[in-house]
Amino acid sequence: MYDFAAEPGNNELTVSEGEIITITNPDVGGGWLEGKNSQGERGLVPTDYVEVSDSIICFADQLKCETSSINIQNVNNASDPWSGWNIGKSGNWDNGTAGDSWATKPESAAGQRNSASNNWDTAATFGHPQAYQGPAAADDDDWDDDWDDLKSSSPSYLGYKETESSEAGGSQRGNSRAAAMKLPLNKFPGFAKPGMEQYLLAKQLAKPKEKIPIIIGDYGPMWVYPTSTFDCVVADPKKGSKMYGLKSYIEYQLTCTNTNRSVNHRYKHFDWLYERLLVKFGLAIPIPSLPDKQVTGRFEEEFIKMRMERLQAWMTRMCRHPIVSESEVFQQFLNFRDEKEWKTGKRKAEKDETVGVMIFSTMEPEAPDLDMVEIEQKCDAVGRFTKAMDDGVKELLTVGQEHWKRCTGPLPKEYQKIGKALQSLALVFSTSGYQGESDLNEAITEAGKTYEEIASLVADQPKKDLHFLMETNHEYKGFLGCFPDIIGAHKGAIERVKESDKLVATSKITPQDKQNMVKRVSTMAYALQAEMNHFHSNRIYDYNSVIRLYLEQQAQFYETVRCSISVPFSRHVLY
Amino acid sequence: MYDFAAEPGNNELTVSEGEIITITNPDVGGGWLEGKNSQGERGLVPTDYVEVSDSIICFADQLKCETSSINIQNVNNASDPWSGWNIGKSGNWDNGTAGDSWATKPESAAGQRNSASNNWDTAATFGHPQAYQGPAAADDDDWDDDWDDLKSSSPSYLGYKETESSEAGGSQRGNSRAAAMKLPLNKFPGFAKPGMEQYLLAKQLAKPKEKIPIIIGDYGPMWVYPTSTFDCVVADPKKGSKMYGLKSYIEYQLTCTNTNRSVNHRYKHFDWLYERLLVKFGLAIPIPSLPDKQVTGRFEEEFIKMRMERLQAWMTRMCRHPIVSESEVFQQFLNFRDEKEWKTGKRKAEKDETVGVMIFSTMEPEAPDLDMVEIEQKCDAVGRFTKAMDDGVKELLTVGQEHWKRCTGPLPKEYQKIGKALQSLALVFSTSGYQGESDLNEAITEAGKTYEEIASLVADQPKKDLHFLMETNHEYKGFLGCFPDIIGAHKGAIERVKESDKLVATSKITPQDKQNMVKRVSTMAYALQAEMNHFHSNRIYDYNSVIRLYLEQQAQFYETVRCSISVPFSRHVLY
Repeated sequence: MYDFAAEPGNNELTVSEGEIITITNPDVGGGWLEGKNSQGERGLVPTDYVEVSDSIICFADQLKCETSSINIQNVNNASDPWSGWNIGKSGNWDNGTAGDSWATKPESAAGQRNSASNNWDTAATFGHPQAYQGPAAADDDDWDDDWDDLKSSSPSYLGYKETESSEAGGSQRGNSRAAAMKLPLNKFPGFAKPGMEQYLLAKQLAKPKEKIPIIIGDYGPMWVYPTSTFDCVVADPKKGSKMYGLKSYIEYQLTCTNTNRSVNHRYKHFDWLYERLLVKFGLAIPIPSLPDKQVTGRFEEEFIKMRMERLQAWMTRMCRHPIVSESEVFQQFLNFRDEKEWKTGKRKAEKDETVGVMIFSTMEPEAPDLDMVEIEQKCDAVGRFTKAMDDGVKELLTVGQEHWKRCTGPLPKEYQKIGKALQSLALVFSTSGYQGESDLNEAITEAGKTYEEIASLVADQPKKDLHFLMETNHEYKGFLGCFPDIIGAHKGAIERVKESDKLVATSKITPQDKQNMVKRVSTMAYALQAEMNHFHSNRIYDYNSVIRLYLEQQAQFYETVRCSISVPFSRHVLY
Repeated sequence: MYDFAAEPGNNELTVSEGEIITITNPDVGGGWLEGKNSQGERGLVPTDYVEVSDSIICFADQLKCETSSINIQNVNNASDPWSGWNIGKSGNWDNGTAGDSWATKPESAAGQRNSASNNWDTAATFGHPQAYQGPAAADDDDWDDDWDDLKSSSPSYLGYKETESSEAGGSQRGNSRAAAMKLPLNKFPGFAKPGMEQYLLAKQLAKPKEKIPIIIGDYGPMWVYPTSTFDCVVADPKKGSKMYGLKSYIEYQLTCTNTNRSVNHRYKHFDWLYERLLVKFGLAIPIPSLPDKQVTGRFEEEFIKMRMERLQAWMTRMCRHPIVSESEVFQQFLNFRDEKEWKTGKRKAEKDETVGVMIFSTMEPEAPDLDMVEIEQKCDAVGRFTKAMDDGVKELLTVGQEHWKRCTGPLPKEYQKIGKALQSLALVFSTSGYQGESDLNEAITEAGKTYEEIASLVADQPKKDLHFLMETNHEYKGFLGCFPDIIGAHKGAIERVKESDKLVATSKITPQDKQNMVKRVSTMAYALQAEMNHFHSNRIYDYNSVIRLYLEQQAQFYETVRCSISVPFSRHVLY
């Protein structure tokens, strides 16, 4: 938990759990301190990683024993003021399995406190082969977090071995998200259990400026799509630095296709946006998680390229969503004009109270209320579908990952060996001293080279096709991982309505209150259907595109290999 | 060593080492006895497997301890009257590594007694993936050996687990050959060390009827090729039985392409021919071993097909050889007219004394004698080339075997999984309730089926190309495994000549004797060159054919896969 691997060239100091270091500067800023180890090496260490005792620092390994996990998030949970909220939130689940919605691991039922993480833990089992990520080992590039007092970007990878990280990445990212989500919610009690009643029972919903109409289209309830859409191009990653060059980071340029204006953002800004969107829309709209955090190798070109590609995919998806893309927080993220405007907007977004279930208070279905039977059926259908699709996506990711490994590892290695074996045979043949076999030997050598060529064609192919299939499924895995929370909120609301008859009987609420509750659950159901229709429409588009691309590229691959095989052998006569 | 697995439906009794059985009939013929085990089950057991003690049979496990090997051949060696011959033969090796000629295993130097086997042991490491052989476990189908008192077909597989057998096959076969070779040689001391002196020092070589001229052609010394060549078609395997149906066997029909007459032969007849050829020509001409012996599954169609294919390849190779194909024993094997003629010919062949080094006495080079320096250089060159080619062939067999396994195992399984994953995703999608996505789902299902198709194309492909590449290399492995003995004989002869000056000085031989020795070693050198030119010519032809076939089939494969991929996706518009 408390091992910390320094990023080379970044003035960091590698420290091990239990190691004692001397503080030379207790706060260089941004959550870092400067320390000196027993060998006299100096460097920066994250403050969170160390336990201070009389200006001597020892690594807090007793905490690790307590949680018996190397994931720092568990430590956050252990002292998490929101564990109560988690319990409340888990209580929304009708099946009583807390956050273990579609987890298959038995240990996920270990404690309510971990419930939020467990939803995400599940997602872990279908991590994408992180072929481009280089040796992932530690936290994000945002240690020098000068404004995020919420520790939302605290490291969740530390202590993971390089070999584990590529598989564990998805999970750790997920955990980080889920845990990170709790803290900002502290400010918005509306998101927690009491919030549900607040929404369902409020005498009069405040009419917010931000109205979200739901109309009935050809496919049923749907969001209103803006007349003009836009995308956002993520490009031009640049290394920046701060703290007098002590800390480095990567900054991306974001350009809106409608305004053609650019803003710069670091990963941690995306992370902030993600959290805002999750807090605000997370119970109505699945907000897929950002690409995984990573420290080691985060300045490597391949990693930067991969992260940019994923940030791009994430941004495009957000831009495609009619509600998210039009939201103030999202617009402000893309269109602030200067540092001051950005900070103002940031502060405003963080104070937004229309979050959690309260988002439904902004929604206005232009249709008659649904009855409870229908509401529950719709909700169950969505639960079944998303669960089944989650299984399907998981299966495809698993076999894809296996296939990726084979196609980039043993298979091309084998073709290379065949190529080498043919070439060395030709080399032996050339020493026979027998006349007139140079044609054969050239032909065998040629064949050997062809197999080396096939090796590299095979090894390169996944980047051209499987990669996109995996990325799309990975994104959908992210979407589907949001549904347990969404379904949970809906189920929770339905439960409240079911229980409401008792409350009316005991005069705790009025019949009118109950009527309001049904209306509001109906609004939620419309929102769910509108979102599902958006989801299905995107799903059909995405899978159509990506599987078509996959097949086209595969056909192209077989064609290319076929053409690479020449048969340079002349018919030969014996004797 | 003494486990015996019964062939089902063949009246055999499975017995384990150390088990005590009661003899009910001590000799039912053909090396079998009938016994009864403690459960009262009756059946046939090979006589060799049991140790008789007061009409109680216990399995001779103490012998196993002595040899600490499960290979019965080692037992033969332990009581082998020819161990002296082996030592003498090993003494011919100039590098002093006994029979460990190009063995890489350290244990092969364990004892001189094993030297002959060790040459073959080496070959073991490049066994062909015996994909067609079914579960190989035990000995040949020739237990009921009614005339072979030499035990040449004694079981060499017993005790090997099914999983090991496919890899160990080549080795065991090899061991069996090498060991089997010793026994008939007993009759022909000319093949052993004294024989070398007999050939080199004989005042006057008896002029045998069978003269083998060596002429000088475009490529140097060469055999005289017959004006018309022939092949022999091995076909029509039929199950026969004997001992009143107690024992079954497979009989093949052999038809000469020149006479168009057919004879029938069982595997054990081929085995007999192989031994005759090895004894007679083995020091001048590499005689590749027959396909591996096998008991379990030997009546299975796939196995019979595979064995026939390999017997065919072996016969074709023998027919292609100008000396072997014209030899009396070979001609008699193909052209006997009735049982009586066959038996007469068989007995005659077994009495042939022109075997071992004496074969060189039949050879008449039509060229001036070579000098000793040149002789030694030529011999060394052959040694180097065959060793290097052996390495090359071994490498190709190793990677080919690996590739075979991958292409018939994990790879198609993976394509199948991809296919299934796509199809189940389509199935999930079809439950979405969203209208108008049936086209997509059909297309994904189609794509899934394509991947199942690719799986079977991939799995079937090795039979169409890699198989032949492996078979050819397997055959050459057999050839090359003969060269340590051949080179050994030549080196031995050269050594004798080198030592002869001392013998002249001490008047043990005359200067004329020495002249004769040089002349005879020169004849051997011509024979070696003639054989090498034959070998090279065949090698070039074979590798040209097989690698061309391989590439053509590979190109065809990629073409077929490419065509199997249709892209049934229409361009789709989002929203």
